[in-house]
Amino acid sequence: MAARTYSVTFQPGGRQIVVPEGCTILEAARDAGIRLNAPCGGSGTCGGCRVVIPDDPPPPSETCRRVLSGEEIRRNLRLACQQHVRRNLRVVIPEETRLLDERILTGGIERQVPLDPNCRKVVLRLPEPSVADQRADAERLLDELGSKFQVPSSKVDLKVLRDLPERLRSLDFNPAVVVIGDEVAHLERPTTSNACYGFAVDIGTTTLAGYLVDLVTGRTVAVASRTNPQTAYGDDVVARIEHCGRARGGAKTLHDLVVGAINEMIAEVCRRADIRPAVIYEVSAVGNTTMNHLLLRLPVEAIARAPFVAASASAQSVSARDLGIRISPAGRVYTAPLVASFVGADTVGVILATGMHESEALSLAIDIGTNGEIVLGMRDRLLACSTAAGPAFEGARIRYGMRAAAGAIDRVDLRDDRLAVHTIDEAPAIGLCGTGLIDAVAALLEAGVVLPTGAMRSAKDLAGRTGLARQIVGADGLPVSIERNGQGDLGFILADGASAASGHPVLLMQRDVREVQLAKGAIAAGIATLLEEYGARPDDIEQVLLAGAFGNFIRPERAAALGLIPDLPPDRIRFVGNAAGTGARMLLLNRALRDVAEDVARGIEHVELSCRADFQQRFADAMFFPEPPAR
Amino acid sequence: MAARTYSVTFQPGGRQIVVPEGCTILEAARDAGIRLNAPCGGSGTCGGCRVVIPDDPPPPSETCRRVLSGEEIRRNLRLACQQHVRRNLRVVIPEETRLLDERILTGGIERQVPLDPNCRKVVLRLPEPSVADQRADAERLLDELGSKFQVPSSKVDLKVLRDLPERLRSLDFNPAVVVIGDEVAHLERPTTSNACYGFAVDIGTTTLAGYLVDLVTGRTVAVASRTNPQTAYGDDVVARIEHCGRARGGAKTLHDLVVGAINEMIAEVCRRADIRPAVIYEVSAVGNTTMNHLLLRLPVEAIARAPFVAASASAQSVSARDLGIRISPAGRVYTAPLVASFVGADTVGVILATGMHESEALSLAIDIGTNGEIVLGMRDRLLACSTAAGPAFEGARIRYGMRAAAGAIDRVDLRDDRLAVHTIDEAPAIGLCGTGLIDAVAALLEAGVVLPTGAMRSAKDLAGRTGLARQIVGADGLPVSIERNGQGDLGFILADGASAASGHPVLLMQRDVREVQLAKGAIAAGIATLLEEYGARPDDIEQVLLAGAFGNFIRPERAAALGLIPDLPPDRIRFVGNAAGTGARMLLLNRALRDVAEDVARGIEHVELSCRADFQQRFADAMFFPEPPAR
Repeated sequence: MAARTYSVTFQPGGRQIVVPEGCTILEAARDAGIRLNAPCGGSGTCGGCRVVIPDDPPPPSETCRRVLSGEEIRRNLRLACQQHVRRNLRVVIPEETRLLDERILTGGIERQVPLDPNCRKVVLRLPEPSVADQRADAERLLDELGSKFQVPSSKVDLKVLRDLPERLRSLDFNPAVVVIGDEVAHLERPTTSNACYGFAVDIGTTTLAGYLVDLVTGRTVAVASRTNPQTAYGDDVVARIEHCGRARGGAKTLHDLVVGAINEMIAEVCRRADIRPAVIYEVSAVGNTTMNHLLLRLPVEAIARAPFVAASASAQSVSARDLGIRISPAGRVYTAPLVASFVGADTVGVILATGMHESEALSLAIDIGTNGEIVLGMRDRLLACSTAAGPAFEGARIRYGMRAAAGAIDRVDLRDDRLAVHTIDEAPAIGLCGTGLIDAVAALLEAGVVLPTGAMRSAKDLAGRTGLARQIVGADGLPVSIERNGQGDLGFILADGASAASGHPVLLMQRDVREVQLAKGAIAAGIATLLEEYGARPDDIEQVLLAGAFGNFIRPERAAALGLIPDLPPDRIRFVGNAAGTGARMLLLNRALRDVAEDVARGIEHVELSCRADFQQRFADAMFFPEPPAR
Repeated sequence: MAARTYSVTFQPGGRQIVVPEGCTILEAARDAGIRLNAPCGGSGTCGGCRVVIPDDPPPPSETCRRVLSGEEIRRNLRLACQQHVRRNLRVVIPEETRLLDERILTGGIERQVPLDPNCRKVVLRLPEPSVADQRADAERLLDELGSKFQVPSSKVDLKVLRDLPERLRSLDFNPAVVVIGDEVAHLERPTTSNACYGFAVDIGTTTLAGYLVDLVTGRTVAVASRTNPQTAYGDDVVARIEHCGRARGGAKTLHDLVVGAINEMIAEVCRRADIRPAVIYEVSAVGNTTMNHLLLRLPVEAIARAPFVAASASAQSVSARDLGIRISPAGRVYTAPLVASFVGADTVGVILATGMHESEALSLAIDIGTNGEIVLGMRDRLLACSTAAGPAFEGARIRYGMRAAAGAIDRVDLRDDRLAVHTIDEAPAIGLCGTGLIDAVAALLEAGVVLPTGAMRSAKDLAGRTGLARQIVGADGLPVSIERNGQGDLGFILADGASAASGHPVLLMQRDVREVQLAKGAIAAGIATLLEEYGARPDDIEQVLLAGAFGNFIRPERAAALGLIPDLPPDRIRFVGNAAGTGARMLLLNRALRDVAEDVARGIEHVELSCRADFQQRFADAMFFPEPPAR
């Protein structure tokens, strides 16, 4: 005798399926290709699969009454796994009940990435072994993961395996299973939250940015940043590499420093989100090649010596514990692939975050950090290079340089022969951040205080031509006497002692202008070289993507005034924030993207600038500032 | 202007190809789809690619003269990599020059397996980095492996990576690379031999058998065996598992014992083959589930408790060093997949070695060790079960039992009312090996000294009916007085004190006959149960495959006389030797076979006998011996 069948219609969407009498709504949804959130595997314990039965809902089962509130039951909510189909039904699936990888969320900027994290935690209720079902513990687990959750885990880590029989039995065959990639990494007691977090980190030469990501919702729930403590051993990667070559254990010291800072950030975001670090199971790290190698304890020496070769450019996945990173002891650290010795995973992150590798428009991405990485191209062809911009825009090597924090001068405008100076949070001035630095140089260039050659004119030269002459002083902040003029370093008072936090004035020094010249010259020459290699003119660039914490606040017209970026209409300039960090987060949230990252990294044409005579010539040319418009 | 082209004809086979002038014979062969042995990558250093140019050979290059002997040059041998095509050529490829995986070799029994080992050593000559070629060290290596050697290694072990830059440079970018599976495991200085070995081991409950396999030629070059030292903790797996549950550190003790014995065997085969253990890079181990778990340090407790569940049935590949196995520090241990708690990787090895999984004939394989594993079926369906045969056939629990060595009674025939007893090497008798045990029981059954119930008749019962009555004695070897008859244990003198090595007679005891009854009853009942499940009659069996060191020497008509195996025509019985060990060797020699092994292990239907009432009934029935033919 054939079983009776009924139709079930799912809303929204209207998908309809005919099922035999007695099957659960959860099963019907699965057959209809709709995946509901049921981490407990349909045992009625997690409450994840709540659906609305709008028309004449059946009385709630005992399990429903235990898991759902009275209010929810009155709103006709029921658990899909507990409700059997006994008539034709219409079922409404609330958004939060759809399985996460059916939702779409924004990974950053405006790129959308389907939530399908590399690391998942699922609650299983395994059939207990019997003489009729003698599968080994590992296969029992893997079969269930594969069939019920489509988790493609194909193996169980040997350490987990050694504890598996005891563990499964102590958990009554009802474990919460953490799967990282294709490996079962950890089993634990299910909790009501079944929290599962990842931590994305952008390891910059000067600055670290870390993001705590909820792998269940895809949301970034806390952010932390730090100065890279390795800066004590040099401002740029070459100095750090030299330290490794010079000092016994130097590489270990630098490794320990960055790991220590990452652990601090992890502790900080955990405090803020009120979670334990043990529920973070994966770290995704991007960084330049040197930062990547120091984190992984790979040798760095050959990176800084011609012909500049890394130990490995591939993505790695290593035990967090082996690296000393304090998350779950079963946790892993994924490092994104690299392009070349000076074009690292951070650049790959920028490309993923901005979608350049899929775009039909010719794009130029500039990530201004201590190195300036530049990418030019579109879907079928991407070129990349790296220029030693130096840490000027991150506030280092600038006399009064600082990070973009309260009290940092972030805007300088020339108004009626006076400088209007703005500080972050309008606090008393402490120093200059990167954007303030660019603004200040651009304003002084406009005012004629700084010449296109980069020379700061003396108070004497300017006397009578601008009221700003009075603000030109010596390094000591005191007015420059005629005798001392031209000797020592000149400075320009941006904030006098009265408006500054310390009581001492904040100055822009002649040497600071030289740092800006070097940095902007390197970047501008890199852009020019890539355009030449690509066979394009500046005007062909359809969008300029400014990445990096610094890029995000820059005023394009000021950057163009200095010649840092091509002089293009403002609507072609886009700010993409810390796109490298966004890329790192996307790599946590979607595992398929890791293959894309590998393809992108292998497909980019890397243009090595250091040995090119044409680059040296362009660099020399680009050291000068454009002539300011006549006033 | 188009380049000139010439035709090159390769013998044997006659494959012809047209190539541009100046290409090497090695390149021409590659284009023709013929792979030559060129581990140095064509740099003229290894001498592997020697070919004969029979017609008017060109004068040898300087490299040829350095690498080849004067005699070889006179025989028109040249190096294919050094010889450029400047006219139409005929080239003869000696067998030893063909790349190994083009040869076919016998992996054991009569199954052929293409040589494509999971572990390979290849000598690379990498292009050195330059500004025009800035690939990272790891990618440089992997690219070369992939393109020149079709070695599908996709990653470099992190430990190797950490040394890679220094290593590659100290080896002048000319490393011998050991690839295990898809991973670069080790780099070393190339030598003339570039030796690359594997070790296959069959870990029996009672006996270990090890094989040193040359992975370059595919040949087994040395063999060793040992009694499993775990026998000190119990004769069978259940006793060993109980020891683990009882004694703190018991599992560790058993692990250490078997690893110690494996290390002894490795040292022994290395001495014999005159190689260092450091050139063994992979171990392939088969064994029953308990042996497998004890080797891997997986928990065994649940194996012996109903419902008899293993921790993991999958194949594993683990670091040899982590297990304490002394081969190359970079070496790995592969353990073949298991079927169930009492049907292990050794059974999978038997199936692979006999080709049952591909056969069109209904086959019955019996591997008689301490457990008797039985497989019945053919290509589309295989059934397997395990019976606790006990170690009787391996010489254990038998009063005068011993392994099949010089002095072991291996044949007993009834001739004219007397027993004709043969010993291995015709040495003075020391004891009884498994085949001698079966022969002795069968002969005494035929003589009427042992009844179909298994009872040994007393001297008194037999007096006057057979001259053999005199040989029935007490356990002390003294004639049994009427008073003592029926009390204590009876024995039968197979070799008297005068012909025995010790001066004491060698006896078959009543208790020994009981052990044989238990063992043969278990196996016969297992066979009957599988036949029932399969829906076949004994007569449908087209071939009986007798595996195991014991099976190899058994006389089928005697085994049939006891009812141990079905009574089939002798041409249906085949001896397959230590097929489990052969399977282990095949798994070293052909990596694709590892997937086949996994499929076989997952596809077998396991029949659990322990809880079946029908098996218990069959077991009880099968304890009796068949009625001997009337004399």
